[in-house]
Amino acid sequence: MGEFGLIARIEALSRRAFGSRALPSVALGIGDDAALLRVRAGEQVVVTTDALVEGVHFDFAQESARTAGRRALVANLSDLAATGARPLGFVVALAAPPSLELARALGIARGLLDVAAQLDCPLVGGNLARASEVSVAITAIGAVRAGRGLLRSGARAGDRVFVTGTLGGAALDRARKRVTRAAVPRIGAGIALARTRGVGACIDVSDGLAADLMHVCRASGVRARLEVAAIPTPSGFAKACARVRRDPLALALAGGEDYELLFTARGGAAKTGLLSRRLGVRVTEIGRIEAGRAAVLGLPEGLGAGGFRHY
Amino acid sequence: MGEFGLIARIEALSRRAFGSRALPSVALGIGDDAALLRVRAGEQVVVTTDALVEGVHFDFAQESARTAGRRALVANLSDLAATGARPLGFVVALAAPPSLELARALGIARGLLDVAAQLDCPLVGGNLARASEVSVAITAIGAVRAGRGLLRSGARAGDRVFVTGTLGGAALDRARKRVTRAAVPRIGAGIALARTRGVGACIDVSDGLAADLMHVCRASGVRARLEVAAIPTPSGFAKACARVRRDPLALALAGGEDYELLFTARGGAAKTGLLSRRLGVRVTEIGRIEAGRAAVLGLPEGLGAGGFRHY
Repeated sequence: MGEFGLIARIEALSRRAFGSRALPSVALGIGDDAALLRVRAGEQVVVTTDALVEGVHFDFAQESARTAGRRALVANLSDLAATGARPLGFVVALAAPPSLELARALGIARGLLDVAAQLDCPLVGGNLARASEVSVAITAIGAVRAGRGLLRSGARAGDRVFVTGTLGGAALDRARKRVTRAAVPRIGAGIALARTRGVGACIDVSDGLAADLMHVCRASGVRARLEVAAIPTPSGFAKACARVRRDPLALALAGGEDYELLFTARGGAAKTGLLSRRLGVRVTEIGRIEAGRAAVLGLPEGLGAGGFRHY
Repeated sequence: MGEFGLIARIEALSRRAFGSRALPSVALGIGDDAALLRVRAGEQVVVTTDALVEGVHFDFAQESARTAGRRALVANLSDLAATGARPLGFVVALAAPPSLELARALGIARGLLDVAAQLDCPLVGGNLARASEVSVAITAIGAVRAGRGLLRSGARAGDRVFVTGTLGGAALDRARKRVTRAAVPRIGAGIALARTRGVGACIDVSDGLAADLMHVCRASGVRARLEVAAIPTPSGFAKACARVRRDPLALALAGGEDYELLFTARGGAAKTGLLSRRLGVRVTEIGRIEAGRAAVLGLPEGLGAGGFRHY
C-alpha cells in the first residue's frame, strides 16, 4: 500500500475517531508542512515526548498492536496531566519494517486514536519511516495558564503528599501476564490541580511511586516520609498478589505505569476530601515532605527508589 | 555510561551551545515531565515532526554523526520556516543500539545543537530508547501570528511562483559523494514572508522542486507552469554536473534537500526585487499559477513530479 496509502488510511481513521466533533484547538491539522494549534491568551505551551520500541517497551506476542498504541499515547498524555495542561494535539513518528502487516500498523493507529478521542487530543501530524523494528515516538502538545504549570520542583517542607486513584494494578496485571488495563491519564484532575492554590509539586506515577517521589525530592531539594500503610491499592489486591506470589507493597511502590498523579499540597488545600471533590477522583494522603537531603524515607528494607532503566 | 549519564551529557552540551544567552521562549526546559514555552498574545502554535533512520536517511560510513544530527534538525526547522513560524524549541526521541559508541551519540547531539544554537531553537526535552539502529525523531515547535501561517493551499490562479536561494546544490553534493553542505533553514525569510500581504502558498524544497510544487498544486487546486530556464542554481553548477555526468536540470528539479522556500505571490508583492529585500535573500521568479487540475507544466520529458518515497 506504500507510505502515502498508509498515511491516508490513518487520516481516515482519525476523522472517524473524532466524528463531527469540532476541535477548537486545531486551526490546521494533518497534511501541510506543520500543524497550527490555537492557545488562549495568557497560556503557555506544554511539550512532552516519549517513545515505545518493539522488544523493549512492547512485544506483539504479549499484546495487540492496538494496546501498544494506546499505551504509547497514555504515557505522553499522562505527562501533560502531571503539568496541569489541557491537551491541544499530538504528533507521531512511526517507524516500522517494510514487512509490517497493514493490520498491525493500523492497529497501532487505532490504539492511539482510542485514547486521543477519549481525551480530545487530536492527531495533528506524523512521520512514517522504515526501520528494523516498530517504534512509536510521540510528542504531545498542551496548554496551561502561564505560571500555573505544575512542576516536580514545587514541593516544600511541611507539604502533605497525595496520590490519585490506586497503585500497583498495572504491575499486578503484568505479573499475571494480563494485558495492562489501559490506564486513563488524569487530564481532568491535572487541570483542576493547576487551578488550586496551595498545590506544590506534581508528577505522574510512570516509573513507580518510590522512584517518582524521589524525582520530586531531587527537583525540590527536600525529603519525603512515606506512610506505606496508607498507599491505596485496587480492591482485592492483596489476595490477587498472593495468588501470583508477589509482595503487594513492592508492586504498589515500584510497579509503575499506573499513571496516577502524585502531588504535594499545603495549607487549606491539603485536605483529602476537598481535593477529591475538586479533582473528581479518589485522593489519598500517603506522606509528608520534610527539610533535608533528597530521599524517600519509610520504604521497607530492600526496596530502593530506583526507576526503570532502558539502557 | 547509561541512559541518565548520556542525558546529563547532552544537557551539558545544550547549556554550552547556548551559553549565557537568554531564551525568552523557554519558561521551563529539559528535566521535568514537560517543557513550558511562552507564546505572544495573538499567536498560534506551529508543530512539525520528522524522523531520520540509520540505513534509510543516513549512513555513518558516508557522513559523521554530527552531520546526521545537523540534517535531522534542519529538515524540521525548514518546515517551521515554510509556515512562517519563529522557532520556540524542539524535542528529540533518540533511539540507538546499546552498543552505540558514546562519541557517536554525542556527535548526533552536537549536530542538533549546532543548528539549534544558530537558529535560537533550544532543546527542551527528549527521550532515549534502545533499538536495533539509530533513529532521530524530532518535533519542532514554533509560533506564528494567528491567521498568518503560510500554507500549501494558499496559491491562486495568477500568482507568480518564486524560490529563495539556489536549487540542486545538495543533489550535486550527493552525486559527488560529498557531505551535503549543511543547508540553513530559511527561518528569517519565512517570518518575513508571513508578514507580507499578497503572499499565497509556501512550502520548503525538501523532496525536490517539481514534487514540492506539485504538493502546492494539489493542496491549492491549481496548476503551475514552470520556466525551467529560470531556475536558479549555484555558480559553476553546469560544469560541476558535467564532471559527474549528471543532468543539471534533473538535479535542480528533483534533487531535494535544498531547504529553500518555494512560494507564490500576487499583486504588489509579486516583485523579485521587493521580495529579495524583505526576505534578505536572493529570490527568483520561476513560473506562474494557472487555473486547472493539479499539475506541474513545463517539465522536460521523462521527469515526473514524484517525490522521495521511504516505503
